[in-house]
Amino acid sequence: MTAAATHTSTPVAVLGLGAMGQAIAGAFLAAGHPTTVWNRSPGKGEQLVERGAVRAGSVGEAVRASEVVVVCLLDQTASRAVLDPYAADLRGRVLVDLTSDTPQRAREAAAWAEKEGLDYLDGAMMVNVPMVGTPEALVFLGGSADAYERSRPTLAALGGQVTHLGADHGLAAAYDLAVLDFFWTSMSGLVHAFALAQAEGIKAADLVPYLNGNGGLLASIAPAMAADADGGRYPGDADNLVMDTAGVTHVLHAAEHHGLDASALRAVKSVADRAIARGHGADGWTATIEAVRSPA
Amino acid sequence: MTAAATHTSTPVAVLGLGAMGQAIAGAFLAAGHPTTVWNRSPGKGEQLVERGAVRAGSVGEAVRASEVVVVCLLDQTASRAVLDPYAADLRGRVLVDLTSDTPQRAREAAAWAEKEGLDYLDGAMMVNVPMVGTPEALVFLGGSADAYERSRPTLAALGGQVTHLGADHGLAAAYDLAVLDFFWTSMSGLVHAFALAQAEGIKAADLVPYLNGNGGLLASIAPAMAADADGGRYPGDADNLVMDTAGVTHVLHAAEHHGLDASALRAVKSVADRAIARGHGADGWTATIEAVRSPA
Ligand SMILES: NC(=O)c1ccc[n+]([C@@H]2O[C@H](COP(=O)([O-])OP(=O)(O)OC[C@H]3O[C@@H](n4cnc5c(N)ncnc54)[C@H](OP(=O)(O)O)[C@@H]3O)[C@@H](O)[C@H]2O)c1
Ligand SMILES: NC(=O)c1ccc[n+]([C@@H]2O[C@H](COP(=O)([O-])OP(=O)(O)OC[C@H]3O[C@@H](n4cnc5c(N)ncnc54)[C@H](OP(=O)(O)O)[C@@H]3O)[C@@H](O)[C@H]2O)c1
Repeated sequence: MTAAATHTSTPVAVLGLGAMGQAIAGAFLAAGHPTTVWNRSPGKGEQLVERGAVRAGSVGEAVRASEVVVVCLLDQTASRAVLDPYAADLRGRVLVDLTSDTPQRAREAAAWAEKEGLDYLDGAMMVNVPMVGTPEALVFLGGSADAYERSRPTLAALGGQVTHLGADHGLAAAYDLAVLDFFWTSMSGLVHAFALAQAEGIKAADLVPYLNGNGGLLASIAPAMAADADGGRYPGDADNLVMDTAGVTHVLHAAEHHGLDASALRAVKSVADRAIARGHGADGWTATIEAVRSPA
Repeated sequence: MTAAATHTSTPVAVLGLGAMGQAIAGAFLAAGHPTTVWNRSPGKGEQLVERGAVRAGSVGEAVRASEVVVVCLLDQTASRAVLDPYAADLRGRVLVDLTSDTPQRAREAAAWAEKEGLDYLDGAMMVNVPMVGTPEALVFLGGSADAYERSRPTLAALGGQVTHLGADHGLAAAYDLAVLDFFWTSMSGLVHAFALAQAEGIKAADLVPYLNGNGGLLASIAPAMAADADGGRYPGDADNLVMDTAGVTHVLHAAEHHGLDASALRAVKSVADRAIARGHGADGWTATIEAVRSPA
């Protein structure tokens, strides 16, 4: 162990050894932190133990062995089940829950931590498993600046872009959910596009080169769309909602023609149709935000 | 006009001067082709005339002035209304319809052209208006190789990636719709993410930097997902459908909590739930394709 590693090494516990928990524990080990791991069911994370992690027999044992306690479970229901009995053991340490859930549940968890006198950060991993620990890896955190300062040298192991968004514990989840809203809707569109291509006799792999171009297109127009969304004006100079919705309708008809599930496309079209009915037909696609804000 | 431009210059007509038709006519003018333009309603495309385009008083006049006739209208219903009366005038020229619609309607148009003895290509503009004519601009075409060879030097003005996919007139629309399936679903997710962020007190503009990271993520995982979709196996080593769907559910709950339209998210979740019910809970997200192929 180098002097630098000794200087910053902090005993850390990782509770939850799913795909993401294992990646997190692996990143702490790689950074030279003494790492204690725990998982509800046995058998997970054997390679972590081979790499030097200590397996704890209980949550309490893991917590007591560490200064920073990092949690990564399925959701906050799991976090509550795992953490609530161990408030006394957690006192004096920094608790960092990187489990994804809603802002509301993050704030409820913060209220519990406050009542118990715990230093608590609520966070979200904004990357997939292979990216954990890389310079590009983004991790959002919300909670007290003090708790962040104490855990920052340890959490730096998780990636190059560990970002404290502010004292509000709900902030990480708020950003996370908005990003996931885009991400999962896009992922659903991607799989649906594969199914539609295949139904037309095109291999999904043959479609991919053309999707990337459009992915780039979307990234390039997102800033202007955001400005429209924030400004409440949606100029339709380059594309208008009537033409856009004709395109959506063609996709929908083709999907129905091939007997594919078209429920998401129908929902997309009906939001656009509502925006048109409200007078936005000559505006750009971002005008659909008005219909998103007032459900049918 | 340079010798090279003279060499390749071909009289071309553009029918339809919406945002895309104007961009197309502008690209032909920029490449030095004598360009005749027509639009159903008056007043559109004044700058094209200022740049040297000739405005035709009728479709027939535009067609008779040109060797290559390029059409870009709202949909194939508009194309039929505009073109059907002019089959005799179109004979001997190459008709290139760049209007987006379904593969089925493209093949119907091809059947009409065949019956009338016309050389016909059905195409799709795979870029937005500002990209038309740039080296990156992708244009798909389907139809006879002969018609493509005759119009290729002219159509090269539209962009650096004019691509003849094959003799089947439905091919351009098939690729187009699969790409648009991904594109419009993602665009709907983007606007919804802006609405959700704003409901949480976050400006859409502040979300954008984090979306781009995820956009890159999606492009990076699309090839592996396509291989899974083509192979019919969906390993869930790095993410599993139960965890993924928990994430979708959090987004859905947050959207409902803020009173936003959540119909598309509900559809995404219900497809994923169906895939889980069919035994794909431990598989990756691409397994949802099984549920897409068998609607509820
Ligand atoms: N994987 C990714 O790409 C990714 C990316 C970004 C964020 N995330 C987030 O990271 C978190 C974990 O994801 P993951 O991929 O690691 O999921 P996963 O592989 O499905 O693991 C889920 C973990 O939660 C535990 N768990 C579930 N319910 C529990 C309960 N009631 N009590 C105790 N433990 C419980 C599981 O324990 P058992 O082993 O005993 O079942 C397991 O350790 C999620 O919030 C996810 O949204 C994941
Ligand atoms: N804009 C883009 O970013 C984009 C990108 C890729 C593909 N496309 C495709 O390009 C095509 C045109 O899009 P656009 O943006 O130019 O749309 P647009 O601005 O809405 O223009 C629509 C055009 O269609 C004409 N039209 C509609 N119905 C007609 C009818 N029954 N008879 C005669 N003309 C009719 C309109 O004439 P009037 O002026 O008389 O109404 C106008 O010229 C669409 O298929 C679209 O999917 C567009």
